Amino acid sequence: MSNLVAVLPGDGIGEEIIEQAVRVLSALKLDLQLEKADVGGRAYDVYGHPLPEHTLALAKKAKAVLFGAVGDWKYDTLPREFRPEQAILGLRKNLGLFANLRPAILYPQLANASTLKPEIVSGLDILIVRELTGDVYFGTPRGNRRVEEGPFKGEQEGFDTMRYAETEVRRIAHIAFQAAQKRQKKLCSVDKANVLETSQFWRHIMLEVAQEYPDVTLTHMYIDNAAMQLVRAPKAFDVIVTGNLFGDILSDEASMLTGSIGMLPSASLNASQQGLYEPSHGSAPDIAGKNLANPLATILSAAMMLRFSFQNEEAALRIEKAVAQVLEQGYRTPDIYEEGTTKVSTSEMGDAVIAT
Amino acid sequence: MSNLVAVLPGDGIGEEIIEQAVRVLSALKLDLQLEKADVGGRAYDVYGHPLPEHTLALAKKAKAVLFGAVGDWKYDTLPREFRPEQAILGLRKNLGLFANLRPAILYPQLANASTLKPEIVSGLDILIVRELTGDVYFGTPRGNRRVEEGPFKGEQEGFDTMRYAETEVRRIAHIAFQAAQKRQKKLCSVDKANVLETSQFWRHIMLEVAQEYPDVTLTHMYIDNAAMQLVRAPKAFDVIVTGNLFGDILSDEASMLTGSIGMLPSASLNASQQGLYEPSHGSAPDIAGKNLANPLATILSAAMMLRFSFQNEEAALRIEKAVAQVLEQGYRTPDIYEEGTTKVSTSEMGDAVIAT
Ligand SMILES: CC(C)[C@H](C(=O)O)[C@@H](O)C(=O)O
Ligand SMILES: CC(C)[C@H](C(=O)O)[C@@H](O)C(=O)O
Repeated sequence: MSNLVAVLPGDGIGEEIIEQAVRVLSALKLDLQLEKADVGGRAYDVYGHPLPEHTLALAKKAKAVLFGAVGDWKYDTLPREFRPEQAILGLRKNLGLFANLRPAILYPQLANASTLKPEIVSGLDILIVRELTGDVYFGTPRGNRRVEEGPFKGEQEGFDTMRYAETEVRRIAHIAFQAAQKRQKKLCSVDKANVLETSQFWRHIMLEVAQEYPDVTLTHMYIDNAAMQLVRAPKAFDVIVTGNLFGDILSDEASMLTGSIGMLPSASLNASQQGLYEPSHGSAPDIAGKNLANPLATILSAAMMLRFSFQNEEAALRIEKAVAQVLEQGYRTPDIYEEGTTKVSTSEMGDAVIAT
Repeated sequence: MSNLVAVLPGDGIGEEIIEQAVRVLSALKLDLQLEKADVGGRAYDVYGHPLPEHTLALAKKAKAVLFGAVGDWKYDTLPREFRPEQAILGLRKNLGLFANLRPAILYPQLANASTLKPEIVSGLDILIVRELTGDVYFGTPRGNRRVEEGPFKGEQEGFDTMRYAETEVRRIAHIAFQAAQKRQKKLCSVDKANVLETSQFWRHIMLEVAQEYPDVTLTHMYIDNAAMQLVRAPKAFDVIVTGNLFGDILSDEASMLTGSIGMLPSASLNASQQGLYEPSHGSAPDIAGKNLANPLATILSAAMMLRFSFQNEEAALRIEKAVAQVLEQGYRTPDIYEEGTTKVSTSEMGDAVIAT
């Protein structure tokens, strides 16, 4: 178990981007055992479920999951429990992956890729710490019911339960404070405490945990304001910590600020350093199988895997430096290409990283 | 009642921006009866409540509420039910103001104000239709409780109920489809139907109502993707319709794309054309009382009031044209000032609008 990596390429471009990450890992000659399995739409096609038993079993046994991407329009009409994304939710829940780390970094070489003005985003380096197993994602009761009272009595309503228990907030708070300690020591907790009881509770626990980290400056921001400030002055942020739903929104918004979401990795961790590592982008079925996709987010996810699940900081840094170097050398997949640089394919980008 | 306007300036810059809007209304010599009352922190100071009985009574009696802004840091430590923002929530709930219309328009003269590149945002014209009285904002039960089962059994949790009943979705859908009919006929409904039961229900009703509007193209987008697409390609949107929580986030994000939130009005309507009209920006206590604030969002809110609550399209257009013209003439309050334009104060901006 201690050196087992479950490799789950999934749908769309998943296969080709994972292939490059696997090549990079192999080139490093680490003592890792890689085992592949189906997940997502592809698994549904073969086994009738997006997260088949044997895939889940492999993921549980492994120290880390290297995940490509899931989803394709052709599964859009399936009942929700069979849709590809359910595999991600299932893995998070079954492995207890409560801490999602999503860096939004703008590489200086890619400053033009952003839709924002260079002076607003150049040098951007935010870390979003998103809680991943609580909140309105899994809270019960949920479903449809008949309204029992009030002006809509007698009609149907859809409903969900938003909730956070103390331990859930506390453990993600520790992750976030510790991450901030290693960075600029600024932590911004995002909630909607002016409206939500869940957020008031969240804020209360954040303030308690803050006592243990006097070197970190904790601030609080409402989610609506955070969504604005990310557009207005994103560099003012260092680490952001927030719940599952707000984190879903903010981490995607933040990654789009860079204009190069093909560069952004992510890690989802549990309490025993097991982790799932995946690019922040999706399965891009429109370019699948064409050797056009950017494999760097997946390669950087493999670096995060080495850092967090295998405590191999050296190998992680080696990958990260190699990626910075290929950018410096001017290699670009189509998503980040601009005049004056060298356009390369998915596999050529893998070659370039391995060569440095 | 039919010509009564409740004027609620509120806190911070509220007084000075409302003053200009009132001057503009007076200059139009309309048959309106304006009556002022306290709201927000100022009302708390005097009456011990941010929405005193007499203010609520006035608002209920009036055809429209012209609202400035509420909030100041000095009220941050009050228990939540006494904080200034509760006045807004109270007015929405008590007046049944379920439809919030928030345009995000980038005036060509202010294209530089945005943090986004001009080619991404110039000509931006989005309308966000936010449901305002349902969702997790008011759903019950909510509060704190002891966890009854599962891994966190025995500890405390904070919780809220997210919910939408059929009528609530249906009526906001109609508002949104009708708004789209008057514009580019594109409606994007934003939800999180891949995770939330409330969203699945929302989407289901949207699809049903769509049958009645065959001329409008309805699309669906997940909230995380919408938060990204607003940054990537905001001009692809025409009308966005969404729930209370997602609308809170997206409307603020969209308004910040323009870089000139001091220009953006909003309307909150109920089923009988009663409405609350307020600028999209906040109370800006840091510049309050200094004659520096931009009154145009409030003046444009007054125009929306004439359009929606008094069916006076002519007067509304007259105000809107006057605002476009003062921009064309180069008048700018400090928030939108740039070299080569004429910097004016709050009251001078009011003068300029009245003069045209
Ligand atoms: C696919 C979906 C359920 C998922 C989420 O909402 O968490 C995705 O958006 C993500 O952020 O990984
Ligand atoms: C003050 C707050 C309760 C309010 C909301 O969340 O609706 C505000 O953010 C808004 O959008 O008007």
